Amino acid sequence: MDYKGLAQKYGTPLYIYDFNHIKERYNELKNAFSGRKSLVCYAVKANSNLSILRHLANLGAGFDCVSIGEVKRALMAGAKPYQVIFSGVGKSDDEIKTALNSNILMLNLESEAELDRVCAIAKELNKTARISIRINPDVDAKTHPYISTGLNENKFGVDVMSAKKMYLKAKNSAHIEPVGVHFHIGSQITEISSIIEAANIVAKVVSELKALEIDIKFFDVGGGVGIVYDDEQNVSLYDYAQGILAALKGLDVTIVCEPGRFIVGNAGVLLSSVLYEKFNKNRRFVVVDAAMNDLIRPSLYDAHHGVEFLGKNEQISPCDIVGPICESGDFLAKNLNLPKCQSGDLILIKSAGAYGFSMSSNYNTRPRAAEIGIEDGKDRLIRRREKFEDLIALETEFLN
Amino acid sequence: MDYKGLAQKYGTPLYIYDFNHIKERYNELKNAFSGRKSLVCYAVKANSNLSILRHLANLGAGFDCVSIGEVKRALMAGAKPYQVIFSGVGKSDDEIKTALNSNILMLNLESEAELDRVCAIAKELNKTARISIRINPDVDAKTHPYISTGLNENKFGVDVMSAKKMYLKAKNSAHIEPVGVHFHIGSQITEISSIIEAANIVAKVVSELKALEIDIKFFDVGGGVGIVYDDEQNVSLYDYAQGILAALKGLDVTIVCEPGRFIVGNAGVLLSSVLYEKFNKNRRFVVVDAAMNDLIRPSLYDAHHGVEFLGKNEQISPCDIVGPICESGDFLAKNLNLPKCQSGDLILIKSAGAYGFSMSSNYNTRPRAAEIGIEDGKDRLIRRREKFEDLIALETEFLN
Repeated sequence: MDYKGLAQKYGTPLYIYDFNHIKERYNELKNAFSGRKSLVCYAVKANSNLSILRHLANLGAGFDCVSIGEVKRALMAGAKPYQVIFSGVGKSDDEIKTALNSNILMLNLESEAELDRVCAIAKELNKTARISIRINPDVDAKTHPYISTGLNENKFGVDVMSAKKMYLKAKNSAHIEPVGVHFHIGSQITEISSIIEAANIVAKVVSELKALEIDIKFFDVGGGVGIVYDDEQNVSLYDYAQGILAALKGLDVTIVCEPGRFIVGNAGVLLSSVLYEKFNKNRRFVVVDAAMNDLIRPSLYDAHHGVEFLGKNEQISPCDIVGPICESGDFLAKNLNLPKCQSGDLILIKSAGAYGFSMSSNYNTRPRAAEIGIEDGKDRLIRRREKFEDLIALETEFLN
Repeated sequence: MDYKGLAQKYGTPLYIYDFNHIKERYNELKNAFSGRKSLVCYAVKANSNLSILRHLANLGAGFDCVSIGEVKRALMAGAKPYQVIFSGVGKSDDEIKTALNSNILMLNLESEAELDRVCAIAKELNKTARISIRINPDVDAKTHPYISTGLNENKFGVDVMSAKKMYLKAKNSAHIEPVGVHFHIGSQITEISSIIEAANIVAKVVSELKALEIDIKFFDVGGGVGIVYDDEQNVSLYDYAQGILAALKGLDVTIVCEPGRFIVGNAGVLLSSVLYEKFNKNRRFVVVDAAMNDLIRPSLYDAHHGVEFLGKNEQISPCDIVGPICESGDFLAKNLNLPKCQSGDLILIKSAGAYGFSMSSNYNTRPRAAEIGIEDGKDRLIRRREKFEDLIALETEFLN
């Protein structure tokens, strides 16, 4: 890859996504469930760029959305409404209305209070709301506490007993059609036994619901399959799929999965230029033009990102890579070995395709980076770099 | 305050800032240094809304900026160029050029490599660059590690020895005029003895520089004076100012300070509506329409924000306040006692004026909140709420 050429053409910091990698990963997962009805719903929150969504829609992907904005993005990118799921613990009335009017596949409900709201709104619109219920199976995903979601101490879903009660209520409502069941115990999971454990718990619920003539068609196993950032082991998709299929023995359901990071995580890199190298006593800092506003994962989750230095390979010594933002929490990598850096040298922050740009901000009045896609060796802009004028656009008219 | 009326008029989540409080805090600090030449430079990064900057400019404030975007904001809001300082460890060539062409008071330099760049660019522009040097006094600010900046393990500034070397180099350069000295050991400091300790170290450097005929005019003590979020003790501004003045005995310098949080932190609240109340087994969650994309401090710094519930005061029990974002890191307050909540009830997240909106993002495709100012009882919009169309504006043209 001609990173120098890309830096000159588009500037830095720059998010670069490999559309071929995205396709491979999507197909890998789709194939793992071949022989069963399945729907791979990409988790838009990981990276919501419209061109990435369109790329996935063209491959046949469905979409897992967690706000009406994400639903709108998916539909705008070409998603088929019957392949769009709307999840999340806090859907507003307006969001529920828009979702019902969009005829999406289903709303994934996370509380009884929400079921009541959806019921009332569906009645008002004279619609039937297709729903699934997110079951919190109280299983430990063994991942970072911030992205662990399957314990009762987490805000997500409802416990098994409450879910059954809600399904009965839904069945008896004229405006609700329960069609799915859902769980999602966390993100970046590398021990899939916890996902399989959850699948077995939830499959048992589906059997019990069938006995009550509640016909669950979609068995949504969420996302969470981990990727390799550092020294993690690659998850075996075969074991993952076979474990889920075994749990579903005898059940005629469509398997839905919701990969986000799995598809885009290692498809993306953040290209950055070195501004300065400095020493504070014996501590070496490489100051680059990307910062925590571009990629907050190291600061927020203490996440590791691999780094590739693209300059001359001389005089290697330990350093921290930091950005220009005025707080010590602004770092991209710590205690790594890197050659001596010159101003203008390029650095690649790897595995930055998921939860990179989508979490970026304008902190320190820093414009957000440009995003480009590479497909079959060709590069193209998919979001232009922000300008100062973009940042103040919603404030200037009120300046008096 | 008629929060219900404001919620109806502007919607929620909503940032509300008290312009009278901002004025009081600015004057308090200005008065603490009365009798000496002083310049209070508001730290734009804490809250960079243009109307807040104009309010402060009208009061006579200068501005501490950490990007050229912040410099532009300050100037656009009415700042006098000779009251604007540009700090930060990672200034790009373009930023340095624009700053020199804007004739601001001084560039605050953080490394020798940066001094060399500024020297080269000033020569190229045939300008004289007024500079200060940020000294890292290796003093422990005893605050959160992410906002502690005065230790050698932090990326900021240069040690005393390196600073002296840089001042000599600057003095001998035809295009550099060293006019200031600067330190800033961290943010939200409640034990001011560490600031005073740093002031004494840096004052000694100033004396030594005067002996070398380097005439330092501005003694910049940075910001960092803590505020009350929870049970912190109020910092005595009298002790703070007297401690600094004592350190400066015999030195004829203008004192510069750079308060951000001190001025706006407790001037702002985040008004939010309850969406749902839910229980996961015995754990109670109040789901509101504000989230970590609006206010990341609880998640990023484990920061405490006081909460005021504006509904009926009945059936109090413990709960977590969480947002609609799909990760467990999305919480605003944990383990607090709150009455039973109804959908539509209002909740105030307090002390949200600093590092609230300025760090906000569009994570989960959530539009950023509106901001309003209240002055003498009158409310007015100072930034309109983002729409879905704003979020995709830089992507749609590339959708093919």
